[in-house]
Amino acid sequence: MKPVPSFSGLARTLALGILLALGARAQAQTDPLPSWNDGPAKQAIVTFVKETTEQGSPSFVPPAERIAAFDQDGTTWVEQPMYAQVMFAFHQLGVMAAKDAKLKSTEPFKTVFSGDRAATAKLSLPDLEKILAITHTGMTVEVFQKSAQDWITSARHPRFQRLYTELVFQPMLEVMKYLRDNGYKTYIVTGGGQDFVRAYAERVYGIPPEQVVGSAADTKFGYDKDGKAILTKVPKVMLVDDKTGKPVGIHLMIGRRPMAAFGNSTGDQQMLEYTQDGGGARLMMLVHHDDDVREYAYGPASKVGTFSDALMAEAKKRGWVVISMKNDWKRIFAWE
Amino acid sequence: MKPVPSFSGLARTLALGILLALGARAQAQTDPLPSWNDGPAKQAIVTFVKETTEQGSPSFVPPAERIAAFDQDGTTWVEQPMYAQVMFAFHQLGVMAAKDAKLKSTEPFKTVFSGDRAATAKLSLPDLEKILAITHTGMTVEVFQKSAQDWITSARHPRFQRLYTELVFQPMLEVMKYLRDNGYKTYIVTGGGQDFVRAYAERVYGIPPEQVVGSAADTKFGYDKDGKAILTKVPKVMLVDDKTGKPVGIHLMIGRRPMAAFGNSTGDQQMLEYTQDGGGARLMMLVHHDDDVREYAYGPASKVGTFSDALMAEAKKRGWVVISMKNDWKRIFAWE
Repeated sequence: MKPVPSFSGLARTLALGILLALGARAQAQTDPLPSWNDGPAKQAIVTFVKETTEQGSPSFVPPAERIAAFDQDGTTWVEQPMYAQVMFAFHQLGVMAAKDAKLKSTEPFKTVFSGDRAATAKLSLPDLEKILAITHTGMTVEVFQKSAQDWITSARHPRFQRLYTELVFQPMLEVMKYLRDNGYKTYIVTGGGQDFVRAYAERVYGIPPEQVVGSAADTKFGYDKDGKAILTKVPKVMLVDDKTGKPVGIHLMIGRRPMAAFGNSTGDQQMLEYTQDGGGARLMMLVHHDDDVREYAYGPASKVGTFSDALMAEAKKRGWVVISMKNDWKRIFAWE
Repeated sequence: MKPVPSFSGLARTLALGILLALGARAQAQTDPLPSWNDGPAKQAIVTFVKETTEQGSPSFVPPAERIAAFDQDGTTWVEQPMYAQVMFAFHQLGVMAAKDAKLKSTEPFKTVFSGDRAATAKLSLPDLEKILAITHTGMTVEVFQKSAQDWITSARHPRFQRLYTELVFQPMLEVMKYLRDNGYKTYIVTGGGQDFVRAYAERVYGIPPEQVVGSAADTKFGYDKDGKAILTKVPKVMLVDDKTGKPVGIHLMIGRRPMAAFGNSTGDQQMLEYTQDGGGARLMMLVHHDDDVREYAYGPASKVGTFSDALMAEAKKRGWVVISMKNDWKRIFAWE
């Protein structure tokens, strides 16, 4: 039998316990959303968390069902002037052209290499798909992951001249942490490629790969030259995780309706509807980009992240909370 | 400020703390795998867990990367004489025929209704697919889930006359719990339908819906007559999570190679290869059904759960651990 610790040891242990408990209480009373201005958006988040997690609340949600879904581009980080993943694809084209010069004289790649931004911005969807296919498939999942990690830790945003991962919205990081601290599992549910986002989601959002739902290419099982089992990315779409595809991706990968969903564009509408129509206390929020000083102001006319008039009408009709970046966010980036 | 508790209160609190700590230590020293006989299979599991979770071990695996994948049919529960899900499909056919008598006179359904077990067992794969399509699609995901829950909580196995969920292998439940107690996330990775398994996985295995990877039909987003957002299951395959499809499903849904994988048939071979070839300390195990007294004994000749000679040779070559149900399992079912 182990000896019972001495009384002075007991007292020390106990004092430490009390200090830790008091510390925890003090921390719990600090504002979990310091980058948010007081207002209806912040209030909606706090009310939702209290309603769904406080014992005895009529809207109490068991921990296992606490799922929150976050769109990425425009919701958790900057998406202007172009999605980060498209910039990554253009970069990868350059890497490939260094080994295969023919690419530079073949359309649609030639347009990208021309440096003509206007022409590049006008590339058709099929052309963009060709660029995505050639830069995102034909390698093992590990080789792709390494490329994405190399790019994301070095490429800089043209306006802010910072890493893309520094252009994550601090208020949304706080919401993610606040939800997790209250037993929620946080998911990224993005129209972007899930293998791309998985390359940094854990480090940047605290979200592990298995909680990233995104558009996905198929993979093919095989063996490398040493007989080791590998998966190769192939140019066949498995899931387009956008618009009506978001609820489909959520069901495929999570299997429950989220309790909370955050978006910023028409691509997120169905995800918010699917969330809300699960019934009970749910939280649906849309980020509105209305701050061209600190970030961007764009709406129906934008090529990416369209916040149409119809979406604004739907938000009003369904009672979704629209977040004004200008008014609701005290701070947008951690480095401000 | 809160008053400091009295000394007797302190002493009580402290004594309770010591009791709890001693209790935890005592529990940690009890056998986590009581239904396993001592032997190389049990030893392999314990060694793997220690090697990958003890601080300072050269094979230490960070908690976030601790993923374990379990095949279901034949690995975590009985799969003879027929997969539970096929029995469910036959039952659902009966429910449908009660509303639409034509089904009874239409092949391949007519064969099922004939009660001719031999003929039913000989149904071709396309015929089985027709049966699966008609019983597993055309309804919302919630309606399907309810049907599966109703069936799984009432249907009985023809030989054991018990609920299918009572035919879960107690030794595998212990492995799942032991892994989870050591920071592993446990996944079901099944050739069966993920929506079917999700209907009971949390209750039976302690595995939430988002940790069930399985074959999946596509779903279609839409609205019901009240304008509520719904997902309807449609007869279009998204993922066949079997054989080479298991690593594909794992990458799609988890995004990492598992550290441990458990199977029992040729359908699991590639999953075990993919697990092993991630490198480092990994655990690959195959359940061998060699106990026709307590469960079943079957091998290469079986229509389900084929343990071919080639698989046995591969297991030897790659050093996978083959579990003999007869010799390694003290108890197979909780009710024994």
